[in-house]
Amino acid sequence: MIKVIIIGAGNLAFHLLKTFEKNTEIEIIQTLNRSKKEHKSNIPFTTDYSKIKDADIYIIAVSDDAIPDVSQKLIHKKGLVVHTSGSVPMAVLSKNHNHGVFYPLQTFSKETEVDFSSVPIGVEAKNKTDLELLKNLGNAVSKNVQEISSKQRKSLHLSAVLVNNFTNHLYHLGKVMCKENKVSFELLKPLISETVKKLDTTSPFDAQTGPAKRGDKSTIKIHLNQIKDENLKKIYTTLSQSISNTYGEKL
Amino acid sequence: MIKVIIIGAGNLAFHLLKTFEKNTEIEIIQTLNRSKKEHKSNIPFTTDYSKIKDADIYIIAVSDDAIPDVSQKLIHKKGLVVHTSGSVPMAVLSKNHNHGVFYPLQTFSKETEVDFSSVPIGVEAKNKTDLELLKNLGNAVSKNVQEISSKQRKSLHLSAVLVNNFTNHLYHLGKVMCKENKVSFELLKPLISETVKKLDTTSPFDAQTGPAKRGDKSTIKIHLNQIKDENLKKIYTTLSQSISNTYGEKL
Repeated sequence: MIKVIIIGAGNLAFHLLKTFEKNTEIEIIQTLNRSKKEHKSNIPFTTDYSKIKDADIYIIAVSDDAIPDVSQKLIHKKGLVVHTSGSVPMAVLSKNHNHGVFYPLQTFSKETEVDFSSVPIGVEAKNKTDLELLKNLGNAVSKNVQEISSKQRKSLHLSAVLVNNFTNHLYHLGKVMCKENKVSFELLKPLISETVKKLDTTSPFDAQTGPAKRGDKSTIKIHLNQIKDENLKKIYTTLSQSISNTYGEKL
Repeated sequence: MIKVIIIGAGNLAFHLLKTFEKNTEIEIIQTLNRSKKEHKSNIPFTTDYSKIKDADIYIIAVSDDAIPDVSQKLIHKKGLVVHTSGSVPMAVLSKNHNHGVFYPLQTFSKETEVDFSSVPIGVEAKNKTDLELLKNLGNAVSKNVQEISSKQRKSLHLSAVLVNNFTNHLYHLGKVMCKENKVSFELLKPLISETVKKLDTTSPFDAQTGPAKRGDKSTIKIHLNQIKDENLKKIYTTLSQSISNTYGEKL
């Protein structure tokens, strides 16, 4: 059994707790967070760092800004201290004797169930024993555990912003436009699914379609006239320009 | 049997042909295109508009720019003349006695099979009988046929550019970044799928996460330093700004 302590009260901490709790290879011996949000479980909980127990792994699942403070409080612990952030380098934990990173590459919200077995987990550690321990922890819950360096993780995190945060915002903008024009956003869902499905058979470079790809200036002009919101106009222009640069079409 | 003629040699014409061919309620009596690309089928084919037969429906599946020319050549036909474009108003066909629109809302490429039954089809016609005919044609292949006005179709098409063309380009940019940093784009696929899956249970407004949503200036700064390409920098800034405007966070 790998003995872990989960620190944090956010979405990731919540899902780690739920997933680890039902796992037979992992024992959560304590949870800790400052906000006094007790997880609904029978696991010992504290808000007080002086009462923190001894564990194999301390998982810091807090906001990026809070990682240095939290790790400072674990400085005398012998166990492995890891953070879970995509953009924070492992070196931030360098004062902790044993340190590493346990990075689940997924978007987490409390309302949505997550099947951890399909979540890729990037692990990194200062020494081999710790790396093995993190791999074991990862393999206990996921089918896809990989060693990822801080530099690689940083790029993955930025890519994740592009393919998750930005695309989700485009879904939002599309939905707003549908609402304004009294058409159902549901009509777009098969198109959205197909766009993703194509990634399994075609590269997104080859799958690209649309006016900017074709260099179809008249449609782009119609669209820009149609858009009232200056902000959306800017998004439309910037992305169309980027597509046209990619395919060497002049707009 | 609804007798149709398909005009065009592009991706949509190809998929309409493939889908209609195996449908027992539809008979393709002829195909026509100027580029002499004969479809691989036993259906009579011509490049000559003077040899075009009489059909119930003439489906113009050509580029937007070519629609006026093609429809002009069908001006003496009594059958229903429809185009398939998202952004062209029905009125472009006003010289054709019976006219309408048959708009399948999906991305088509010759390499990828399309299950037409889940493709939403927006139909529009000048008169009721034609509208019924188009609905019958649509219902023969799809479970989701709806009457959509030219104005609504225009908004749907613009929304489709946002949720398909632009998101696909973001997948491309994410993939390029992964390649440059020697990490597998495959690692992002569960995240991409989850982003889409969430649309069934949450609004994209509520599902938004990431640094711009949180107003996390330090991560945004790190990302902008990380991006070398000016074009991508502009996309990152524009979309982050739009997210922050949406949620009232100052960046």
